[in-house]
Amino acid sequence: MAIIVQKFGGTSVADAQKIVRAATRALHAHQQGNQVVVVASARGKQTDQLIADALEVNPNPPRREMDQLISTGEQQTVSLMAMALDAMGQKAISFTGAQIRMVTDDAHTRARIQSIDAARIQQWLDEGYIAIVAGFQGVDERGNVTTLGRGGSDTSAVALAAALNARVCEIYTDVDGIYTTDPRKFPKAVKMEHISYDEMLELASLGAGVMHGRSIEFGKKYDVPIHVRSSMNDNPGTLITHEVAQMEGILVSGATMQKELAKISLVGVDNKPGNAARVFAHLAQARVIVNDIIQTEVSTEKANLSFTIAKGDLTDAKKALDGIRKEVGCESLFVRDDIAEISVVGVGMRSHYGVAGKLFEALAQAKVNIDSITTSEIRISCIVDIGHGDKALTSVCEVFELDKPADQRTY
Amino acid sequence: MAIIVQKFGGTSVADAQKIVRAATRALHAHQQGNQVVVVASARGKQTDQLIADALEVNPNPPRREMDQLISTGEQQTVSLMAMALDAMGQKAISFTGAQIRMVTDDAHTRARIQSIDAARIQQWLDEGYIAIVAGFQGVDERGNVTTLGRGGSDTSAVALAAALNARVCEIYTDVDGIYTTDPRKFPKAVKMEHISYDEMLELASLGAGVMHGRSIEFGKKYDVPIHVRSSMNDNPGTLITHEVAQMEGILVSGATMQKELAKISLVGVDNKPGNAARVFAHLAQARVIVNDIIQTEVSTEKANLSFTIAKGDLTDAKKALDGIRKEVGCESLFVRDDIAEISVVGVGMRSHYGVAGKLFEALAQAKVNIDSITTSEIRISCIVDIGHGDKALTSVCEVFELDKPADQRTY
Repeated sequence: MAIIVQKFGGTSVADAQKIVRAATRALHAHQQGNQVVVVASARGKQTDQLIADALEVNPNPPRREMDQLISTGEQQTVSLMAMALDAMGQKAISFTGAQIRMVTDDAHTRARIQSIDAARIQQWLDEGYIAIVAGFQGVDERGNVTTLGRGGSDTSAVALAAALNARVCEIYTDVDGIYTTDPRKFPKAVKMEHISYDEMLELASLGAGVMHGRSIEFGKKYDVPIHVRSSMNDNPGTLITHEVAQMEGILVSGATMQKELAKISLVGVDNKPGNAARVFAHLAQARVIVNDIIQTEVSTEKANLSFTIAKGDLTDAKKALDGIRKEVGCESLFVRDDIAEISVVGVGMRSHYGVAGKLFEALAQAKVNIDSITTSEIRISCIVDIGHGDKALTSVCEVFELDKPADQRTY
Repeated sequence: MAIIVQKFGGTSVADAQKIVRAATRALHAHQQGNQVVVVASARGKQTDQLIADALEVNPNPPRREMDQLISTGEQQTVSLMAMALDAMGQKAISFTGAQIRMVTDDAHTRARIQSIDAARIQQWLDEGYIAIVAGFQGVDERGNVTTLGRGGSDTSAVALAAALNARVCEIYTDVDGIYTTDPRKFPKAVKMEHISYDEMLELASLGAGVMHGRSIEFGKKYDVPIHVRSSMNDNPGTLITHEVAQMEGILVSGATMQKELAKISLVGVDNKPGNAARVFAHLAQARVIVNDIIQTEVSTEKANLSFTIAKGDLTDAKKALDGIRKEVGCESLFVRDDIAEISVVGVGMRSHYGVAGKLFEALAQAKVNIDSITTSEIRISCIVDIGHGDKALTSVCEVFELDKPADQRTY
């Protein structure tokens, strides 16, 4: 019998009515002959409320106690959902992370899953139960409650699907699936039927939300098909899987725009081994996450080193760099916080030429000047003036026909 | 180093300010050189809210899931209290029932404690931590969360005190201690300094609240001194211990009045072995709890069987009795729901005569007629007309001088 894991986020279980709706969906999957495991998040704004409660008694609460506190949110949801299923005449049992031995390391508030006692759940499934598991939480070797950090419930769901060898992990959310680009920026964007883990990872790292990178990495590692779909209807959403042959024909799957970036350029750094490492170690120490890096030699002695960071990290980054500038011989620091980064992602780039050319053409058509360019194997990004961002994205989407399903594009 | 267990009920931890106050009290006890274990209930009306949430999705929720749900209330309190202590610079760690292996049977919503892993807590105490334990909850052998039913947090606290061989278990509540009688009925009532487990058990069974019978039984069994005191001030409260010599001189420790009773009389029951057992088995099946029973032979063939029950159980009881009346040959059923039961309790009754006479004298003085009388080793109860209840209690309190501390009474 096939196992399906269904994950419901906080907005999909925010009140009694929504919990009943999610439970009904699980029941249908069960009635269709599947074994069903539900993973649920805390209801609506419950976690925020608990964090506020904590800050009232301690502005800097110990992480272990924070996990002990906020893990109650999911525990409440799963017991309520088991009750809802019971009211429908369906056998159901809820589990906390501790109860299914979702063992993690002891890095409270950002723990990583090490193992899951799948046998325990399997036993209940075999007895005809729907199992409801608290997402986002685990337990360390000594029995302390841990939580998995941002996107944690998705990670719980995909990890459970992997441990149970599930046919699919369904992620129910408040959008219909993954779109070719943000429909708020390009209203003609269409939902993708299918996308590869690698593309989804790139999109996630470019801030194209919906799912957090870690859960996708898990899916990729353990080969779990992930189906991102709406909790409000029965439409198929977007299926995330390993790359399949037909994907190779798709040059560009999606496009993104990020505006909350800043670009820092260190001009005239001494071109010596280890200097770049020194700069980035310094930034890491200041907990600044660095995105794309560009280094160019400007002479035999000097190089320019540029990179992008989140705009919110700018003050920290500048402070950190002040401490290292002299050491690496940097002549001047140049900061831009008026930029947008336009990216296109597609596995087809691996085997096809011309994508970069087409992208630059799109930007030229829109009369947008390019500040800098970075690429990965399946991504090309351009930095442009923030004021040109919207028209640049629109032009790129039109040139790559992101308003059409992948199989109807003409290029 | 002496161990003190401090238990704080829901009203004593209802908000951030009260949690901080309770934490401060624990800190003081720690600073005075004690090892401190705190047992806490869910905040204020939290449990009621969770029960309401449950009933919204299932009018008859499965008990296992109910326990899974409502146990989150105490988990939230204990983590918040650990955070509050951390903010004061005091090392503190919170535990759920599962985390300290508070193992119970699997009778969900009314489980009984079987064992506690005291060594785990002792280890943290020895490292200078204050341990905060979620009251009311445990875990069965298979890892399911259980709850202990009414008064459960008190039972957790006393059981922990027993397991840790604590010097005292302090029960912090919203009253100053145990009074000679309900001050709302007899304003001159005084706080008792000292009372025996047996007396407290009688008072608890007579509805004189403050503490639930089970926790007192635990205290008696494992010889844990229980100190009931106010969470609002530092006044000494009432100490509940084993009987000590000086208590023998106290003929009457306290008096109670219960008005929420009904009395049922089965008139003319066949006087055969097993008939009374049949009646009470039938009532037990209908989940009706029977208090005092009086049986009197009225002839060689017939007996009258009377007993009191909670008024709220009257409909269930009458229904149950309708099914058994014929079988036991009962001639008629006589019900009174207009009664009050006045009781006096005192270990001194064991070795002193005259208490009953003095009680009847008090009622006669107040011109109160007695419907029936029952006694235990340390208690005498009279049923009177409900309209005479208040003046009967007042007269009894005055005759036994319950407005004076025990050592100042003149009888």
